[in-house]
Amino acid sequence: MEPEALARLVEEFARLPGIGRKSARRLAFWVLKADQAGVDRFADALRDVKRKIRFCDTCWDVTEDSPCAICRDARRDESLLCVVEEPSDVLAIEATSEFRGRYHVLHGVLSPLDGVGPDDLKIRELLARVRESAPREVILALNPDTEGDATAYYLQKLLDPVGCIVSRIARGIPVGGDLEFADTVTLSRAIQGRERLHG
Amino acid sequence: MEPEALARLVEEFARLPGIGRKSARRLAFWVLKADQAGVDRFADALRDVKRKIRFCDTCWDVTEDSPCAICRDARRDESLLCVVEEPSDVLAIEATSEFRGRYHVLHGVLSPLDGVGPDDLKIRELLARVRESAPREVILALNPDTEGDATAYYLQKLLDPVGCIVSRIARGIPVGGDLEFADTVTLSRAIQGRERLHG
Repeated sequence: MEPEALARLVEEFARLPGIGRKSARRLAFWVLKADQAGVDRFADALRDVKRKIRFCDTCWDVTEDSPCAICRDARRDESLLCVVEEPSDVLAIEATSEFRGRYHVLHGVLSPLDGVGPDDLKIRELLARVRESAPREVILALNPDTEGDATAYYLQKLLDPVGCIVSRIARGIPVGGDLEFADTVTLSRAIQGRERLHG
Repeated sequence: MEPEALARLVEEFARLPGIGRKSARRLAFWVLKADQAGVDRFADALRDVKRKIRFCDTCWDVTEDSPCAICRDARRDESLLCVVEEPSDVLAIEATSEFRGRYHVLHGVLSPLDGVGPDDLKIRELLARVRESAPREVILALNPDTEGDATAYYLQKLLDPVGCIVSRIARGIPVGGDLEFADTVTLSRAIQGRERLHG
């Protein structure tokens, strides 16, 4: 006996990743009780994201204007280029305040099983950009999983002839993590990638 | 450096109950990648719920037309009236197929600490309805928590003089739990095992 408009909203919420049917229903009822202005704002925000957000023609990050704020920022170090999988990774790295170079967003990783090849990613654009701007170092900040490893290997083979340093962010025990609970692969990586301490 | 339209959508998602900032960001990026038609449908569903859904003038459940489908249904037993806190509780009970009477939605429970008194709930409407339709039994299907207990006690005192049986669904529901999230078997048991209250 659920009213149709309510059932449809539950349906839409349930399509979101990580939201089950019960959560979707809870969210729909929350919307039903929310004030009209708040719901309108939510609906506008949904539409605006699709209408206003585009990709930067240089780094392929999400932006409202191209080139994006980071690509326009003259204080950023052009000789360092950080390659990431997704726009959300740019945000994660920016949050560290550790990196002051530029970014390049691939929009995925190589994954033959899912039918994702080099032409589906911003790899051609990366190569053209590296050739043109000749950064000193390209840092591959890809996820440390099978696809990330394969993509890093592929990119390294492509970038090596161009003559820049290619590096990859360290794999190891997360800070605050517990050695005892680390998986063996991570622990192996952490040992292989050990850093010498200087007194 | 997050684009403003994206930041605003993250903000809106984060306002939803049970959605933290990291989930909100994940959802916003999902929307960014979703097709335009799907996002429009989502935005429409949000607005439609506020525009189309109203409350039934008889039972105060959510509906697109008043009286609602349950109140219009002549096959439902008018001599049984089930009092619930929220519209979502009606859905939960309907899902058990255990109850074939009518409903009355209070839209909350008595909660002096939150400033919710009898006048904030559909209690006057319940009393008028019971006086008019004279059901054989009023089943209080309130959550088994402090506020639910207090509200049940209050309603029993009000309804006893009217001369109908007042019962409460059994504590098959875990105490401190929430009706909305009970599984249908537990909820069926609770309805079968309802206890008569004595004044």
